[in-house]
Amino acid sequence: MIRIGIAGYGNVGRGVERAVSAAPDMTLAAVFTRRDPASLKLFSGSASVYPLSDVEKMTGDIDVMILCGGSATDLREQGPWLASLFNVVDSYDNHTQIPDYLASIDAAAKNTTAVISSGWDPGLFSIIRLISSAVLPDGESYTFWGRGVSQGHSDAIRHIEGVKNAVQYSVPIDDAVNSVRRGDRPKLTAREKHLRECYVVVEPGADKNLIEKSIKGIPYYFADYDTTVCFIEDEEFLERHSSMPHGGMVLHSGATYENRHMIEYSLKLDSNPDFTGSVMTACARAAYRLASEGAYGAKTVFDIPLSYLSANDRQTLIKELL
Amino acid sequence: MIRIGIAGYGNVGRGVERAVSAAPDMTLAAVFTRRDPASLKLFSGSASVYPLSDVEKMTGDIDVMILCGGSATDLREQGPWLASLFNVVDSYDNHTQIPDYLASIDAAAKNTTAVISSGWDPGLFSIIRLISSAVLPDGESYTFWGRGVSQGHSDAIRHIEGVKNAVQYSVPIDDAVNSVRRGDRPKLTAREKHLRECYVVVEPGADKNLIEKSIKGIPYYFADYDTTVCFIEDEEFLERHSSMPHGGMVLHSGATYENRHMIEYSLKLDSNPDFTGSVMTACARAAYRLASEGAYGAKTVFDIPLSYLSANDRQTLIKELL
Repeated sequence: MIRIGIAGYGNVGRGVERAVSAAPDMTLAAVFTRRDPASLKLFSGSASVYPLSDVEKMTGDIDVMILCGGSATDLREQGPWLASLFNVVDSYDNHTQIPDYLASIDAAAKNTTAVISSGWDPGLFSIIRLISSAVLPDGESYTFWGRGVSQGHSDAIRHIEGVKNAVQYSVPIDDAVNSVRRGDRPKLTAREKHLRECYVVVEPGADKNLIEKSIKGIPYYFADYDTTVCFIEDEEFLERHSSMPHGGMVLHSGATYENRHMIEYSLKLDSNPDFTGSVMTACARAAYRLASEGAYGAKTVFDIPLSYLSANDRQTLIKELL
Repeated sequence: MIRIGIAGYGNVGRGVERAVSAAPDMTLAAVFTRRDPASLKLFSGSASVYPLSDVEKMTGDIDVMILCGGSATDLREQGPWLASLFNVVDSYDNHTQIPDYLASIDAAAKNTTAVISSGWDPGLFSIIRLISSAVLPDGESYTFWGRGVSQGHSDAIRHIEGVKNAVQYSVPIDDAVNSVRRGDRPKLTAREKHLRECYVVVEPGADKNLIEKSIKGIPYYFADYDTTVCFIEDEEFLERHSSMPHGGMVLHSGATYENRHMIEYSLKLDSNPDFTGSVMTACARAAYRLASEGAYGAKTVFDIPLSYLSANDRQTLIKELL
């Protein structure tokens, strides 16, 4: 049994815990948290919870540590530190910073294996983009996210004064998707690809017009998009906007001379953190196998033989899935 | 430049030739045929054509030989022989026989690397099935083929007395696809998944009723399906049924406890042999890299780090596609 540790017990941590409990070849050895360990209520209830600061005492008890902190600050600090102690998996998703982050992890993972940026994007969508462009180099890949909740965008709204709660849905624009599906290979701006739908609960007496203007003005997050803001009450928020569905698609429109080909990959997820945790858990298996071969350092989904993701042996995979 | 050889110059061989000509890191070194070499008209016109029987003289001139023969007989004979001489790639697609074929290739590929069963199914669809089941083990994968031409089924019709020409389209049944998409996880029979549409040109004086009955009675190929037979004239056949479009989809319906998730991968291909050749060409790159590491023997798409499929280096892939 592969002994899994979870570092950080938020939504994704809980998703990992659920995925580990469903895996036939894994056991959850421990959960590490910066909060009071006694305050955590685990889904499975069976694993021990320790302060994250005690993690160095546990190097002999954990085969792979799955890092469930956020990309903005947690992973930048915890990633190199934990990769120097354990085989690790994370879902670092700040796309432009990945090469830099990878270098910092690679420097730390001298005798360990670290699979970074796993999840579905980066992660599964990256796999599809790579395969598609390798098979059809005369082609163009398009990635659409949603309809689903973007944590980053929701957070940005929640930081505005007078906002009590908020959620933001990214919504692909049908015209753009259809143009890609037709094989047009359009050049699309950010605004042409996605709408941003915001549902906001305000504090009593807050100026809704000002808040709406503030949201729509946030550079990069909203200013480059058509954004709708809908003010709702606590009750509706709780009832209709508490789950975390997500999804998206990668389309690759390519050609072999006069012949055109379309590759399409889509995800429809009831729970983004559950699914992300499931992908990370499969990658933990790969980290364990790479480490057992002495393949140390920072790895990505591009470096992993796919059979390493599965709990089944090679013979079974070839017989049943090839 | 990776020097590619093509063994067998039919539709798939021509597809490989076109893919190689579009690859920045490959050159077509030679084409080998069992026909009279002078009778072949190459797409690119630049490579030399040799009798297949002379292939042993060329071991120093070819880095990877792409085998474009059929699975029924060609590959069974040529596969082990050529794998003992060259790094090879093939598209062996007789699913139930793959483990046996793999063993025969593995025994021959002592100092070479052989990537078997590449293409889109087996191949890309296999990749999706593996990743999906590794990420969502509580789930079920469904593969649908079409709407597209099945060469095996078309051949089976052409062998019937009185048939001059024939083409068979496999057509997924909407009710089945929709049931899977809804997350029902249905148990589906062969008949419930696909229709078989046949377009047949007969010899003068042939008994159409008898031919139709013969087609519908062919065990495994047609008897287990709802099959339609439409008799047409030469002209219509040439005009409307000469291209080889294909496609299909893999759906994986899974769950993490109470949350449900749907993974969908689909291909819409103007030309089946072009696309198959493109996948094989990407796999030839992987065979070359595996061989350069001394990773000899029979491999499948499950054994390949995905970055090996691409002409771009790891840094570029991480920066642009992760």
